[in-house]
Amino acid sequence: MAVNLSAPDPAKLAPIDGVKLGFAEAGIRKAGRRDLMLMRFAPGTRVAGVFTQNSFAAAPVLVCRERINAGTPVSAIVVNAGNANCGTGEQGLAAARATCAAAAKLIGCAPEAVLPFSTGVILEHLPVDRIEAAMPACANSLAANHWADAAAAIMTTDTVPKGASASATVGGKRIHVTGIAKGVGMLQPNMATMLTYIATNAAIAQPLLQRMVKEIADKSFNRVTVDGDTSTNDSFMLIASGRAGNAEITDATSADYAALHATVLAVATPLAQAIARDGEGATKFITIRVSGATSDDEAARVGKCIAHSPLVKTAFFASDPNLGRLIMAIGNAGVANMDVSKVSIWLGDVRVLLNGGRDPAYREEDGARVMKPAEIDIHVALGRGGAEQTVWTCDFSYDYVKINAEYRT
Amino acid sequence: MAVNLSAPDPAKLAPIDGVKLGFAEAGIRKAGRRDLMLMRFAPGTRVAGVFTQNSFAAAPVLVCRERINAGTPVSAIVVNAGNANCGTGEQGLAAARATCAAAAKLIGCAPEAVLPFSTGVILEHLPVDRIEAAMPACANSLAANHWADAAAAIMTTDTVPKGASASATVGGKRIHVTGIAKGVGMLQPNMATMLTYIATNAAIAQPLLQRMVKEIADKSFNRVTVDGDTSTNDSFMLIASGRAGNAEITDATSADYAALHATVLAVATPLAQAIARDGEGATKFITIRVSGATSDDEAARVGKCIAHSPLVKTAFFASDPNLGRLIMAIGNAGVANMDVSKVSIWLGDVRVLLNGGRDPAYREEDGARVMKPAEIDIHVALGRGGAEQTVWTCDFSYDYVKINAEYRT
Repeated sequence: MAVNLSAPDPAKLAPIDGVKLGFAEAGIRKAGRRDLMLMRFAPGTRVAGVFTQNSFAAAPVLVCRERINAGTPVSAIVVNAGNANCGTGEQGLAAARATCAAAAKLIGCAPEAVLPFSTGVILEHLPVDRIEAAMPACANSLAANHWADAAAAIMTTDTVPKGASASATVGGKRIHVTGIAKGVGMLQPNMATMLTYIATNAAIAQPLLQRMVKEIADKSFNRVTVDGDTSTNDSFMLIASGRAGNAEITDATSADYAALHATVLAVATPLAQAIARDGEGATKFITIRVSGATSDDEAARVGKCIAHSPLVKTAFFASDPNLGRLIMAIGNAGVANMDVSKVSIWLGDVRVLLNGGRDPAYREEDGARVMKPAEIDIHVALGRGGAEQTVWTCDFSYDYVKINAEYRT
Repeated sequence: MAVNLSAPDPAKLAPIDGVKLGFAEAGIRKAGRRDLMLMRFAPGTRVAGVFTQNSFAAAPVLVCRERINAGTPVSAIVVNAGNANCGTGEQGLAAARATCAAAAKLIGCAPEAVLPFSTGVILEHLPVDRIEAAMPACANSLAANHWADAAAAIMTTDTVPKGASASATVGGKRIHVTGIAKGVGMLQPNMATMLTYIATNAAIAQPLLQRMVKEIADKSFNRVTVDGDTSTNDSFMLIASGRAGNAEITDATSADYAALHATVLAVATPLAQAIARDGEGATKFITIRVSGATSDDEAARVGKCIAHSPLVKTAFFASDPNLGRLIMAIGNAGVANMDVSKVSIWLGDVRVLLNGGRDPAYREEDGARVMKPAEIDIHVALGRGGAEQTVWTCDFSYDYVKINAEYRT
């Protein structure tokens, strides 16, 4: 069960002028379940994205990269759940292109103006015929207020649909940002790729949109981990319809850029956290803050070393304030010349480690008290510099093994 | 339960001329259990070692490094189980030195000629008084044929003591190599540091012994993983008493060096495999061979990416031939410019992946057949070059979570 996570109130997901969403049942995932989603953009909409670094990147990722690199304007995106179209070779590339063509024909744009996304089982060929058959229903349902339905249509093993909205004033105009995401591990190659789509009505130049999508990914989705793996299909797209009427943002040092960045991050952060809250088998949501690092990268590395350690994660599951496992994980981050006598650790409001050793004032019952709730905060102070980063993760439970060992059986 | 692993037959662990072993109950781990081990070396014995890279290296590791770097001849080593003496600051260093002094006093050597090792709980101070009280019994029991007892005395959560012997002819003389190891994860910081001691009666120059210990570690202990973590106390010591009568080995390119290397590796390999076989909660022993890499490092990296993935390990537990998780893990190894269309995978004798896609001839029932036994072989051919490496690991079961979540509760 997800940790303190409920489905978004559809009324609170603000429509984005210039963006319409449709959905349908294509019968790819299972009968009677929405598994096809179409997002259509008004002319002039700009789209930027970041994709998985996995060498076995799926066919739709390869097609997206190709089209984005070619600078093709994007009119629509199409997402199917239930089949990842990965490890499918030339046939997979053709299937991804055929999916785009089916959407393009209905909405009246060039096939190259559609970007494809897939999530689901790996090494199975995509049933393009079912997608083609369901596409008319998908196109017929296009509407601006379908964000919550779209969030449900892209789910696989997710237990809760994930969506968020925020708004701000940019260049004197009211701008809105709405996003949806799916994913319950950074990777369960059967079903749980992370896909995120965040759209805004703000106007922003293409190079700055591409810059922003990377910056936001580094501060949100690249800071969350369930099992340390990376999917073959992970994708995060940032969409700007430009209809808010603000003067186009063209300067990354401007106040307008900063305001839009903050608003997009306000949507991306809860979506990223939602992925850890809905992590497979999760019973705890854990926030790991690492301060006193010499660089952001060093802080994130230490945080992820803690978040990835199966020994730390099983201790969280047991609500066990296991300090030994924490210092082991910190020590494994490969930080050169770490002076362990400067390291301190807090669990919630309890300082447990001081000068690299157990805090003399620490009592086990205080540790047990702060480990008991479903949400746990850890703060590691390295005592090396001024950089700080936060990583979110979940625990490692019997149900994680159960879900992943029994998935196909 | 360990996978196809039984305790070594004491009669098959060859004594090493110049090496005597003693053991005692110090009451550190639990009452009525041997937890102290002393190994005494004849004059002229050479010792080389490799140690954990963890920044929170334990006090005994720091003392060992200091003494080995100083070139101090080593007369004995002392090992306690039940307390890792890690995260214990200056008091921990003093405790490690006091342990050595207690042994030195009894066997008549300088305190600096003794190396200390500890394994057990982290962040607790070492009860030096109990070690001092038990040391006379330990010294009184010194004997050349106590290898099996010594293997049992250094165990923590190990379910089976681990020992192996091999012999060969080097420089016209019969040489013997005997080793013992403990460890059931690369790290469970409560109790499961890896400690290994391999001794030979061969004569070899100190720089070559140091070279050999690194080479052997890279081919054996650095190729085994249970949970991807690295202990604060991991140590592997190679001991050469020089009593075999062979001409001292002084050339790393000589046939004698090669013969001794092969014999030490013949002991180190089953000891390393025993660690994975006895991995916490293990139900499967998995051998991952990666060939066709451009370098040994690349091959090992791909192998470890597979061996570390919780998704792959839970699939092994389920005897599930989950090809999607395998290609995901391979794709996450960070191999630049991997041409996935050249990658093939075999499970046992069944080719499952061909040219980056499912082998057209592959049938699920063949995959299920080879995944069923307790020992599973995986072969990944990258199609990039001529380098090849093998990694050993175990699966990830409910019992792994149980053991690590309930350890302290």
